[in-house]
Amino acid sequence: MAPKVIVIGAGFGGLQCAKKLAQKPVDVLVIDRNNYHLFTPLLYQVASSLLDPSDIAYPVRAAFRRARNVRFRVGEVTGIDFAHQEVRTADGDALPYDYLVIAAGSTDNFFGLTSVENVALGLKDLPHAVTLRTHVIRAFETAAREIDPAARAAWLTFVVVGAGPTGVEYAGALSELIHRVLARDYPELDLSAVRIILIEAQHQVLPAFPPHLGLDARRRLEKMGVDVRLGVRVLDATERGVRLSSGEEVGCRTLVWAAGVKPETVAPGGVLPRTRSGRMAVDQTLRVPGHPNVFAIGDIAGVVQDGRELAMMSPQAMQEGRYVARAIVKLTRGKPVAAFRYRDKGIMATIGRHAAVAQVGKLSFRGPIGWLVWLVLHLYYITGFRNRLVVFWSWMWNYIFYDRPIRLLTGSTDHTDTRE
Amino acid sequence: MAPKVIVIGAGFGGLQCAKKLAQKPVDVLVIDRNNYHLFTPLLYQVASSLLDPSDIAYPVRAAFRRARNVRFRVGEVTGIDFAHQEVRTADGDALPYDYLVIAAGSTDNFFGLTSVENVALGLKDLPHAVTLRTHVIRAFETAAREIDPAARAAWLTFVVVGAGPTGVEYAGALSELIHRVLARDYPELDLSAVRIILIEAQHQVLPAFPPHLGLDARRRLEKMGVDVRLGVRVLDATERGVRLSSGEEVGCRTLVWAAGVKPETVAPGGVLPRTRSGRMAVDQTLRVPGHPNVFAIGDIAGVVQDGRELAMMSPQAMQEGRYVARAIVKLTRGKPVAAFRYRDKGIMATIGRHAAVAQVGKLSFRGPIGWLVWLVLHLYYITGFRNRLVVFWSWMWNYIFYDRPIRLLTGSTDHTDTRE
Repeated sequence: MAPKVIVIGAGFGGLQCAKKLAQKPVDVLVIDRNNYHLFTPLLYQVASSLLDPSDIAYPVRAAFRRARNVRFRVGEVTGIDFAHQEVRTADGDALPYDYLVIAAGSTDNFFGLTSVENVALGLKDLPHAVTLRTHVIRAFETAAREIDPAARAAWLTFVVVGAGPTGVEYAGALSELIHRVLARDYPELDLSAVRIILIEAQHQVLPAFPPHLGLDARRRLEKMGVDVRLGVRVLDATERGVRLSSGEEVGCRTLVWAAGVKPETVAPGGVLPRTRSGRMAVDQTLRVPGHPNVFAIGDIAGVVQDGRELAMMSPQAMQEGRYVARAIVKLTRGKPVAAFRYRDKGIMATIGRHAAVAQVGKLSFRGPIGWLVWLVLHLYYITGFRNRLVVFWSWMWNYIFYDRPIRLLTGSTDHTDTRE
Repeated sequence: MAPKVIVIGAGFGGLQCAKKLAQKPVDVLVIDRNNYHLFTPLLYQVASSLLDPSDIAYPVRAAFRRARNVRFRVGEVTGIDFAHQEVRTADGDALPYDYLVIAAGSTDNFFGLTSVENVALGLKDLPHAVTLRTHVIRAFETAAREIDPAARAAWLTFVVVGAGPTGVEYAGALSELIHRVLARDYPELDLSAVRIILIEAQHQVLPAFPPHLGLDARRRLEKMGVDVRLGVRVLDATERGVRLSSGEEVGCRTLVWAAGVKPETVAPGGVLPRTRSGRMAVDQTLRVPGHPNVFAIGDIAGVVQDGRELAMMSPQAMQEGRYVARAIVKLTRGKPVAAFRYRDKGIMATIGRHAAVAQVGKLSFRGPIGWLVWLVLHLYYITGFRNRLVVFWSWMWNYIFYDRPIRLLTGSTDHTDTRE
């Protein structure tokens, strides 16, 4: 019988790993709490009403239609029994494995700020993005009928915390949504009351980028009307406003959290060693110490290279996923496994329409050229699984090839499904 | 000052009325509980994962961008004060009018079957359709891991109540979704256990159509594997099954209700006369008796023509909406208003891919020809406001003209927006 491989998580790492294991002499089971893979780099476009959820979410089962040795299951992993080599799920399943790949990803990190966690809107998964999109439109509808100027101003004030790529891209897209689109929809509103405040604890926009690119991004954001505040933290929040470390209190009805993520907690805490950042400790072959058949990849794994942990980003996760797939095939053949090494492909972030910053090796791009680099790379990656370009044609396509792109478990909406 | 017109409801009737009043010497305020107009004839395609919600929902504000005298407000109308000529909303507004157009539409009619209402999934608005889409995919995921054959069969049994156009179109689309798409996604499932049961109290599929077209629709549905039961009613329902008037009990986890609608109750009951079907009584000029400045149109209005009430369908509502707009303009000029007369444009329903039945005047169409008629007419009507064809290009369009199609208040639930 073929060895059983369980992959926990269908994000960038898990999906790449399972894809690489397709048609190999192993039985693969992918488990995810959602039935779709999410192209998270474009999540901010869903949150800013530019894309539909189905444009950036692809059913996992459809990705493995041609792979007879890969199965999928929707499920919430509640624990791992390393002694019996079983994965437990919330549905009561105990699923046996010979090799386990933990690719459970990350979640919003509120750094213990409970009041912020209670009112902030995240940008980490699809329901978050849809909630944020809806919230912004509701804010405008409410502002349009609010007669008190201070209350109206609070509905038109949007505080975005975190000037990493997610915060920068969302702040830019929100500015364009408001000034290019909503301005036409709400002629009764005086949009000079609109404020988008981008808050960053560090002293640079896009702290992971070279300073000159961070400065370029900041200037472009400010030109778009974004109020950039560096070296400032959010201390406290209510439904009606936030208190900043600068002492200022800002009345706002929308607080967007893009200030950081932390690894998911899949295996019961305390059992496995964690790095200082809370990620699972792994060796040079991405295996969990003491568990030679258990791998951890992506955001959840603290992969150390040249003395530093790799960033929690999709290129790292994808390379790790492909590496682990090759490693498992080697192990099943009794062959040795060489150490993992991440090859840096660069980083980038877009700032509104037609401008972006990108750092690829020693080359840096900005402005329209940076945006072109961003566009080409994203189109390349999205077409890698199925994307907007395909969705454009999906309706006609469906009439020719009997396919339907949209079958996502994003949860229902106003009406909760009571049948479950 | 220009006379104030309030239009309650942005469905087919209300939207047509407001559009006709654009640039006329009146001030128009449209109120709807949603911020979008919904192209309900294609709702079954959202429910069967073929279209995205934004493909059939269009923001009302965007429809009136160029109309300076038409404003919009999201709101739930809680009552009408006819004495003071004010519309009251759940937000506490009291909005004055000189002319009022009640176009509040209809809602699912469960005919007092409380147990059915508790478990049935509707097909009347956008959240319903999204809930149903999600539910069907969940049913397949659950069936895929269910080991008890009887329990699995219940998850794969779909009971659709009502063989009018909505029930017929959904049953056909569901059959295709399952056999053409999900069959490939769930190779581990034996789809011979799948049952789609279409239940109709009357003795014909599509009772409003000529008998030969109903028979054609029935045969096509049966060829697609739909189990059609005529002259049967649902008596009772639980989460695990339904009891039919034939005495049969059917184990099922999905019960779809398309058996009828009833008018919404906007004005406080008892104050205004209702027809036997519960619709608002109106005279030949669609005005509410005793209220010469209050009109009712669409599903909520019982418009009698040739001794019968007009059906609750969009063509009727649209014609009524345009008529009322003209009537209001005449009234503001002190001119007389002629009686309304509906011109029948025919009825149609599609049955899966490439087949439909249509009755236009004395002509009847079926099969592929009927489907072509259906397609042309729907494309014509959708392009009438903005539609899938436009959405295909919306992403590119957005980069040229700064527009964003997707800004719908469909609400969210997994993560309820707590900021409201």
